[in-house]
Amino acid sequence: VSALASPLAQLLRAAPKPHTRRAATQVARLVLLGTGTVGSAFVARYQRLRDAQRALPSLHSVANARGQVACAGDASAALQAAVSMPRRPAAGGPDLSALAAGDVVVDATASDAIAARHPHWLARGLHVVTANKRGNGGELARAQAIARLHGRAALYGDSATVGAGLPLLQAVRALVAGGDRIHAVEGLLSGSMGWLFDRYDGMRLFSGFVREARAAGYTEPDPRLDLGGEDVMRKLLILARAAGIPLEARDVAIESLLPASLAHAATDAVDAQLGALDAPLRERYQQAWRDGARLRFVGSFERDASGACRAKVGLRALPATHPLCGGSGTDNRVAIRSCRYLDQPLVIQGPGAGAEVTAAALLDDVLRIADWMPGEA
Amino acid sequence: VSALASPLAQLLRAAPKPHTRRAATQVARLVLLGTGTVGSAFVARYQRLRDAQRALPSLHSVANARGQVACAGDASAALQAAVSMPRRPAAGGPDLSALAAGDVVVDATASDAIAARHPHWLARGLHVVTANKRGNGGELARAQAIARLHGRAALYGDSATVGAGLPLLQAVRALVAGGDRIHAVEGLLSGSMGWLFDRYDGMRLFSGFVREARAAGYTEPDPRLDLGGEDVMRKLLILARAAGIPLEARDVAIESLLPASLAHAATDAVDAQLGALDAPLRERYQQAWRDGARLRFVGSFERDASGACRAKVGLRALPATHPLCGGSGTDNRVAIRSCRYLDQPLVIQGPGAGAEVTAAALLDDVLRIADWMPGEA
Repeated sequence: VSALASPLAQLLRAAPKPHTRRAATQVARLVLLGTGTVGSAFVARYQRLRDAQRALPSLHSVANARGQVACAGDASAALQAAVSMPRRPAAGGPDLSALAAGDVVVDATASDAIAARHPHWLARGLHVVTANKRGNGGELARAQAIARLHGRAALYGDSATVGAGLPLLQAVRALVAGGDRIHAVEGLLSGSMGWLFDRYDGMRLFSGFVREARAAGYTEPDPRLDLGGEDVMRKLLILARAAGIPLEARDVAIESLLPASLAHAATDAVDAQLGALDAPLRERYQQAWRDGARLRFVGSFERDASGACRAKVGLRALPATHPLCGGSGTDNRVAIRSCRYLDQPLVIQGPGAGAEVTAAALLDDVLRIADWMPGEA
Repeated sequence: VSALASPLAQLLRAAPKPHTRRAATQVARLVLLGTGTVGSAFVARYQRLRDAQRALPSLHSVANARGQVACAGDASAALQAAVSMPRRPAAGGPDLSALAAGDVVVDATASDAIAARHPHWLARGLHVVTANKRGNGGELARAQAIARLHGRAALYGDSATVGAGLPLLQAVRALVAGGDRIHAVEGLLSGSMGWLFDRYDGMRLFSGFVREARAAGYTEPDPRLDLGGEDVMRKLLILARAAGIPLEARDVAIESLLPASLAHAATDAVDAQLGALDAPLRERYQQAWRDGARLRFVGSFERDASGACRAKVGLRALPATHPLCGGSGTDNRVAIRSCRYLDQPLVIQGPGAGAEVTAAALLDDVLRIADWMPGEA
């Protein structure tokens, strides 16, 4: 459609397509892991693109913690069948033994056990496209294994992990590739926390807004991942590593919003304990209000000339005129400072949460991969 | 250096490198056209990257309107020699007959005659990297020829033409490649106009700020290209075409700031005529000030469901709280609305003018191209 299509797509189209282990008539297949709000939005968007005649891998199966359903052509039906499976003891992870090199695994879970298998799948030649931040945002050794494997037999698509597809990771990687050095990244990296502190008025209960955000798919299924800062911490890890900084989780100073009672609650007791957030946050809101400030949940890292990197996550009271108070709702807003962008940062802002944009970012990566053919090793 | 380098660079590294017309031992060469502030900054950055051991094509020659100087190894010396050439009647354009497929032409001029040759060079297998907006932002037929040729035997790098390398064009092209439809783009697309209206206080003479901006390299050598709206109009053309909209210059409604006396002045009389800007702009500033508004020079296009596209460029008085009044100095600030970014636009902001960032964008494209090898047609 576009007269001037993506340079990447054009490059890849122009590149010669050598023999691959897959016969030319055999079409790549796709397995979706996770049938929550993101997985469901992914299937809906996948169906719309297929209806619009976009070349996409066929959907092989849909899996969640309860089991796996083969897809017989109708993606929505497979999703529904997977969603309707009865709860049962964990089945030991999805069975991907039927897949072959060139197939695509889409990870729409938040599971560490699943992310731990990303390097293994890449080594098998399976492409991995993920909204799960525990791959590149997990332990450093895992991220380094992924970086080593990405681009050999298969690609790793992580656009959905930070900013739900906003061109943040892309911008950091492009600057580094151009010889730039990233000095600092600061911003609102959590759409759900942005939404919460945009809405919270110090009068209605904070816990009520948390329930609303969870129902809308803005928070992770367990909202403690957002409130405790882990979600933002993982995004910082991914951005820092994209900037060439080997940051580990223990290097990030996190100021959690979770009172101990909530932090240590069993998963099924979380909802009952959410009220423990209300009193301390009301107090912080009122203090900020008296100072003419606004509460924002900010993540940042900064490295000095020696290469030492300070990273932190927490709630800050900012003047209403502060640039990070702009934007609205679920907007992410991130400032990148580098040798090139020293006095005036590069700022990228846009919706960074919600099932729709996250699913779109996953499909962007699938489309990019569908255009790619690896060379024989 | 980076554990997770650019996905594009990694893809290209991973792609097989077939035979090319250039022997493996023969290194690609680079010709620089234009020795103004951008060309000079390009040479300085080129030298720094080479000193840092980056693999870059060797500098073959440096050309400007007065002639062409071969480079014997020292890029800065060649630049100085070109800058010091005596003025003489135009020499009929640079002589690129010594170049071969795989060499790179860097266009740091603002010349329409040079841009008219971009398709010809691409067809010869010469890569073109340009800060000159008259290629993709020239007549539609020229942009379409470039789009057809890009990615065949050679690449066309236009990162420097809009936002001086801000990831604007890249973002629009990536959205389109992902199946999105761009509805509207609106913003401050001119770093020089942003600087002028950020500084202008309604008291000091506007013409004085124009001279200051020209001396700093923020405006084009002839500042009428900025003040008359042509610069922003060309950037709109480039963005719209990247969005798949076949916009022509005549489709853009331009409100020029130039009084007739200045618009029609001979090039060497421009400086003497700049004072004609002062009275009308002071009046507009005072009117805006009385309304509590600020003056911003805005470019925008918008297409409706039928596909019809309205594009315009001009000075607008905006409330101080308007998002486009944020940012500072030479910042570009652009909002992109699409199916995906409908209620909350994708906003990208950062320095979009100045020789340094423009030269960096040119070198980004050169580095990308240095990693690329075309297949035999």
